[in-house]
Amino acid sequence: MKTGPLALTLGDPAGVGPEIIVKAWNDLRQSGPAFVAVGDFQSLASASAAGASILRRVTAPDEAARIFPEAIPVLDLPLRAPVVAGQPSSAAAPAIIQWIETAVGLALRGAVSGVVTAPIAKAPLYEAGFRFPGHTEFLGELTAAANYDGARGPIMMLTAQDLRVTLVTVHTPLAKVASQVSVEKIVNAGLVTAQALRRDFGVFAPRVAVAGLNPHAGESGGIGREEIEIVEPAVRALRNLGVEATGPYPADTLFPAEMRSRYDAVVCLYHDQALIPVKMLDFWGGVNVTLGLPIVRTSPDHGTAFDIAGRGLARADSLVAALRMADQIAQRRAA
Amino acid sequence: MKTGPLALTLGDPAGVGPEIIVKAWNDLRQSGPAFVAVGDFQSLASASAAGASILRRVTAPDEAARIFPEAIPVLDLPLRAPVVAGQPSSAAAPAIIQWIETAVGLALRGAVSGVVTAPIAKAPLYEAGFRFPGHTEFLGELTAAANYDGARGPIMMLTAQDLRVTLVTVHTPLAKVASQVSVEKIVNAGLVTAQALRRDFGVFAPRVAVAGLNPHAGESGGIGREEIEIVEPAVRALRNLGVEATGPYPADTLFPAEMRSRYDAVVCLYHDQALIPVKMLDFWGGVNVTLGLPIVRTSPDHGTAFDIAGRGLARADSLVAALRMADQIAQRRAA
Repeated sequence: MKTGPLALTLGDPAGVGPEIIVKAWNDLRQSGPAFVAVGDFQSLASASAAGASILRRVTAPDEAARIFPEAIPVLDLPLRAPVVAGQPSSAAAPAIIQWIETAVGLALRGAVSGVVTAPIAKAPLYEAGFRFPGHTEFLGELTAAANYDGARGPIMMLTAQDLRVTLVTVHTPLAKVASQVSVEKIVNAGLVTAQALRRDFGVFAPRVAVAGLNPHAGESGGIGREEIEIVEPAVRALRNLGVEATGPYPADTLFPAEMRSRYDAVVCLYHDQALIPVKMLDFWGGVNVTLGLPIVRTSPDHGTAFDIAGRGLARADSLVAALRMADQIAQRRAA
Repeated sequence: MKTGPLALTLGDPAGVGPEIIVKAWNDLRQSGPAFVAVGDFQSLASASAAGASILRRVTAPDEAARIFPEAIPVLDLPLRAPVVAGQPSSAAAPAIIQWIETAVGLALRGAVSGVVTAPIAKAPLYEAGFRFPGHTEFLGELTAAANYDGARGPIMMLTAQDLRVTLVTVHTPLAKVASQVSVEKIVNAGLVTAQALRRDFGVFAPRVAVAGLNPHAGESGGIGREEIEIVEPAVRALRNLGVEATGPYPADTLFPAEMRSRYDAVVCLYHDQALIPVKMLDFWGGVNVTLGLPIVRTSPDHGTAFDIAGRGLARADSLVAALRMADQIAQRRAA
């Protein structure tokens, strides 16, 4: 079955979003997948050496596929004031949020096959009253009322080469990680991960490895008791629920190539446990996938990079990989 | 200058120590570096397919170099009762400790050029009253009274390929890491690291990167304040002390190949932050080096592996690399 175009939100217009969208279109205009950019037309024009000549305003996503080989289809939702690359402003926040809401709305009513988001920065959005830690949680909220059959996220997955990791805690200070990890959260992450591996990644009988929290996975309680009191019960519960879960494993032994062939995804307990291996395996092309949502959503695994924005230095590898992965997942769900 | 042999302690005789010592000797007997095994003759004989025929008792290390191409020189300090591979016993603890003490004594009086240690396990030693978290701290204690010119450790360094990492906390439960990281400890680790890079690794002007603790290195205080309150002051203090220190860096950005060329070592704040990249870069051949001691000391970066001990499956890559690195460091110090 042929799926529709993807919706690609502009992200923070002062970040690298506009320029990597132009680069991604250059990479994908022949091969696809097609996308419709949701954001400020003028910001995209400023980010392109060819200016507005490679952009085309559209009013609905269904025009996107036809236009895409020639120009970037843009659902223009203009900023009220222009933004300078590298200079984020909270004045842009309402528009940034509107772009995300619009893209999600299109996905919920089936007008696009999925949502891909260029990076946002927390600080300018917080100043404008945004109250979510990031895209992932906001998308969870925006889709909470929609019907969804299965274990519900949002759960963040990162992928790089043959590695897929999902996170139990994300942007949590390290000092609070141990107290925020619970049996319930690990079980939910494991269920959502196993379901997504089957539904979105085509893994017939998913094997889910669960990382330990402490050095040497606690060494039988000698270096912390969370493995005994939290992680092991969670792994047992997952197995009772029919998930082929194993662990807890010492985190330092999980990511060498020799081990990666033994599982389909790792449930990680904190940010850097997951992100250190992802970035080592693919510094430029890692993809962030939100699991357990009624809609398909991916994003690049990097930030707004205000320090290099507008200088043509940003690489689109990760965005291109995110667009391709969203399309693959959408096609699998539609099959 | 020609340096003497290395002293290689047997470690836990129920672990893989004896068999990897035999394998390492097979690898190194022609090329060197020569070592004298310090431990139980009988345990080594049991670990070798050739039995005692490839072993030779010696009474002093200076016989080792001559014997080494033909047999493993053994300074025999027998166990009181035989040990079965895979079945650790606290009855062996006094001998295990004596082997380490003997090797360190030989190094302190210059009879060997350095100490390499096969793995020990904590549990059986603790039952016998051993009160150190591991070799590293015990070696610090055994050498505390010896003269030493410079910043004092012990600081644990792990090496793999082009990566060198040192640790501020080691076998600390994750929940306690944040409270155990301090300006003082980071500064000491940085000083010892920079000094070792110059003295032991031949790096003329060492560049020391310091990792952050929190996701995104705290994102300017938004995800934890340890970077602002602890790590940044420590980096400034190191720079004031003449160390080319930089950071804190988000830990997930530090270890891709693109970044590794920009520093000579990373000061890491906790175990898996350091060990995940080390094991990914070299699952079998990583080396542990103790910095800031009056003696040279290295070890393999793996444990006793009781589950496979005595079955001939253990690989000696890491031990061989540890012996070679100890020899290189000893030669550099002697030059």
